[in-house]
Amino acid sequence: MKLPAWRRTPEDFASRIEQSIPWIVEYLKCDRGPWSPCAPGELAAKVPVAPPLKAESLEAVLDDLRTVIEPGLVRWDAPGWFAWFPSNAHPDAILGDLLASVTAQQGMLWTSSPACTELESRMLEWLRVALGLPEIFREGGAGGGVIQDTASSGVLACMVAARDIATDGAATRQGSAACGGLTAYTSEQAHSSVLKAAGICGVGRDNLRLVPTDNDFRMDAGALADLMQSDIEAGLRPCFCCATVGTTGCGAIDPVEAIADACDTHGCWLHVDASWAGTAALVPELQSQITSGATRADSWSFNPHKWMGAAFDCCCLWLADRAPLIAAMSIDPEYLRNAASGGGDVIDYRDWHVQLGRRFRAIKLWVLLRCTGVEVLSEMIQFHIDLASIVEDAVNLHPHLELAAPRSLSLLCIRHTDGESGTQKLLDMVNGDGRFAATHCRLDGALVMRIAIGTLAVDRKSVDSLIEVLEQC
Amino acid sequence: MKLPAWRRTPEDFASRIEQSIPWIVEYLKCDRGPWSPCAPGELAAKVPVAPPLKAESLEAVLDDLRTVIEPGLVRWDAPGWFAWFPSNAHPDAILGDLLASVTAQQGMLWTSSPACTELESRMLEWLRVALGLPEIFREGGAGGGVIQDTASSGVLACMVAARDIATDGAATRQGSAACGGLTAYTSEQAHSSVLKAAGICGVGRDNLRLVPTDNDFRMDAGALADLMQSDIEAGLRPCFCCATVGTTGCGAIDPVEAIADACDTHGCWLHVDASWAGTAALVPELQSQITSGATRADSWSFNPHKWMGAAFDCCCLWLADRAPLIAAMSIDPEYLRNAASGGGDVIDYRDWHVQLGRRFRAIKLWVLLRCTGVEVLSEMIQFHIDLASIVEDAVNLHPHLELAAPRSLSLLCIRHTDGESGTQKLLDMVNGDGRFAATHCRLDGALVMRIAIGTLAVDRKSVDSLIEVLEQC
Repeated sequence: MKLPAWRRTPEDFASRIEQSIPWIVEYLKCDRGPWSPCAPGELAAKVPVAPPLKAESLEAVLDDLRTVIEPGLVRWDAPGWFAWFPSNAHPDAILGDLLASVTAQQGMLWTSSPACTELESRMLEWLRVALGLPEIFREGGAGGGVIQDTASSGVLACMVAARDIATDGAATRQGSAACGGLTAYTSEQAHSSVLKAAGICGVGRDNLRLVPTDNDFRMDAGALADLMQSDIEAGLRPCFCCATVGTTGCGAIDPVEAIADACDTHGCWLHVDASWAGTAALVPELQSQITSGATRADSWSFNPHKWMGAAFDCCCLWLADRAPLIAAMSIDPEYLRNAASGGGDVIDYRDWHVQLGRRFRAIKLWVLLRCTGVEVLSEMIQFHIDLASIVEDAVNLHPHLELAAPRSLSLLCIRHTDGESGTQKLLDMVNGDGRFAATHCRLDGALVMRIAIGTLAVDRKSVDSLIEVLEQC
Repeated sequence: MKLPAWRRTPEDFASRIEQSIPWIVEYLKCDRGPWSPCAPGELAAKVPVAPPLKAESLEAVLDDLRTVIEPGLVRWDAPGWFAWFPSNAHPDAILGDLLASVTAQQGMLWTSSPACTELESRMLEWLRVALGLPEIFREGGAGGGVIQDTASSGVLACMVAARDIATDGAATRQGSAACGGLTAYTSEQAHSSVLKAAGICGVGRDNLRLVPTDNDFRMDAGALADLMQSDIEAGLRPCFCCATVGTTGCGAIDPVEAIADACDTHGCWLHVDASWAGTAALVPELQSQITSGATRADSWSFNPHKWMGAAFDCCCLWLADRAPLIAAMSIDPEYLRNAASGGGDVIDYRDWHVQLGRRFRAIKLWVLLRCTGVEVLSEMIQFHIDLASIVEDAVNLHPHLELAAPRSLSLLCIRHTDGESGTQKLLDMVNGDGRFAATHCRLDGALVMRIAIGTLAVDRKSVDSLIEVLEQC
């Protein structure tokens, strides 16, 4: 029987994957520098404006992949990628994600995919154990773990839950009428997603207090307590605080225990954002530093899609108590009711985030963790930190360069002693070299170059080359 | 040089994909019924509680895929899948998504991936043209298109933008202090995501009016106008209305033009949710029905990951004016500043939704549309609708079955003339057969069985088999 034109036999699909493999292999050799050479509009100009009516050959598509798409790609996987943070796609995770696409699960309910649901809970348990996170987050407890697409979605979900605890659910039901006077807290070095979430969920950006930091850019827990106290005296209601373990700027690790003390006093939800640095807890020697205070947190998240190589997107979020999140997010239309949900002995993850539908993301964690193993991932993290130490030593020996903040794990913030213009020249030199990508931030108002070490491909050679460029400065 | 243990050569990766292909080919033959045979906890009991410290062989993982994971999978791709809506992963989209993983783009900024950004704008333009959506949504206009992960995220983003228009941005800045009295509207048949969004964004679930529907379950535009009017007389502020083209229950298509009239009167944002039915606009004869009133909408969305086969997740959202969305979502930390963004001639999609990071989803649309072509996808939709007509005819001839709502495209709502218990028996019979999956909803309070036709594999044979089962009723 002839298949209709919109179907492919499994064998045809397999052969098309095989046909694509030479391009994939070539691409993964990564023989060019990280930044794209394209100017704005250059790629779009090569793509037809009208959609293709007739099917084209895969060969034609692969040709265009090479000539049209490839120049517009940024090599986040380059050995000289030191920009922002790593966003690693380990081959085992890529394979796992291929299985997610092939199996086409939609895990909104346990019933709609028991595998997506139960493997997710178990993978979060694996990672909880691997990171040394406390029992309060364990599978089968009052809380548990969930995959959010990104940390931005995770912090929004937690802030919504926190807002509802403070208003006994009235914020979700009545909206603004109930959320008057709510305030939230994070450090002035925290990620922009906290501000974004405050704007979205009705707390309001103006009501997010950016707590000052100490000399090492860590949240000042005393200042936090004072801010909360004065807000309460002004009749306001502190409901949510986000501590950061590894800030985006310089990787500062907030004093979570001391922050928890302030939060406890006022019944404030404590969320820990360890998006980047969380992976470092795979290294036994670093575990206590990274997870410090986690037993006091209401929620804790990190992004395996960053340093751990789980392939974007994949953010792991643990909750000590899932009830307030589910209360805020739950919707129960007739068309989703089913015996398993009604029985109450399964998890329906649709109630744990903004989205209803959900991809089978757990399977990429499963393939990655099994095919690579926790110990190897831990060795990788330690290797990256060691590389960063080598750069740190070179900077300390350099007559015109200095660290603008203590090295945090594998992240360095470097500035020129000549100030702004010197640092800008340094950035231009590193990014102009062709082999490297570096980005910047500001610390105490001054420009610094960020060197975030952590791609799968980075090695001693790439770091030595970077040091050579720094030495020419 | 020996690679560190966390790296794989491109050739090793290729051979591991090849090693997985036999399982993939076998799986895609889909030789079992759609529902998972697993009981709650059954899958989890077969997965170790502790994470693997050492790497295991891919062979062992593939074995477990077969024995542990596979029984817990729900075959959303089965020819007898009539539950909820289709969530199709066309092989070309799967291949495209593999390329997204391999290239590991993170498209938060134009600079962080020109390809991810520019191909996305162009793919949204391709789909705008293919669906016959109006010029107001065109690439390069005041609005434009963006990929959201799901329609739930899309409707939340639009409601936030609408809330900010009504409050001149004060809702994002001041939160509750500014959003007092805001009201939103959707029909009582609308998707639960509208209610969820109202709860999240500070409008409040109580302030979402569920507008009554007519005999065919379409929003009653007159009732909407009356509700808005009485809200205004009560000092409230209508800010957002969601019309549905293809409701989740029975596929009703709201009268968008008439709804737009009511919205215009009060300066209310009009969002059109065509998550499932939007794909039907690929059929030229259906285009005017599906896109009716779209020129009057502020935003319009559909999910190519449903019927079109783009593989979960992928929701396309168009805006007539992107400014209010960007104003509400924009965050501008120093560490994301760059020359291209500063120049103002590029799109930075991080400002178009909750998330900051973003996957290169456009490439799966590109591979799917090019390798399959719009015409073939259009033929597929028409084929599914024709199959639904065949089932409709059988129901109409059946002595004890009837349609509870007019057939909408390829969606049928069937009930037994004996009422609740008869319909429940019908559902049990269809789901108990082993070859089929069907879900339910309630229309006018009465139980109905939904038959949503639309997987890639469904054919005349599967529909004839279903009819045989119906006839035994």
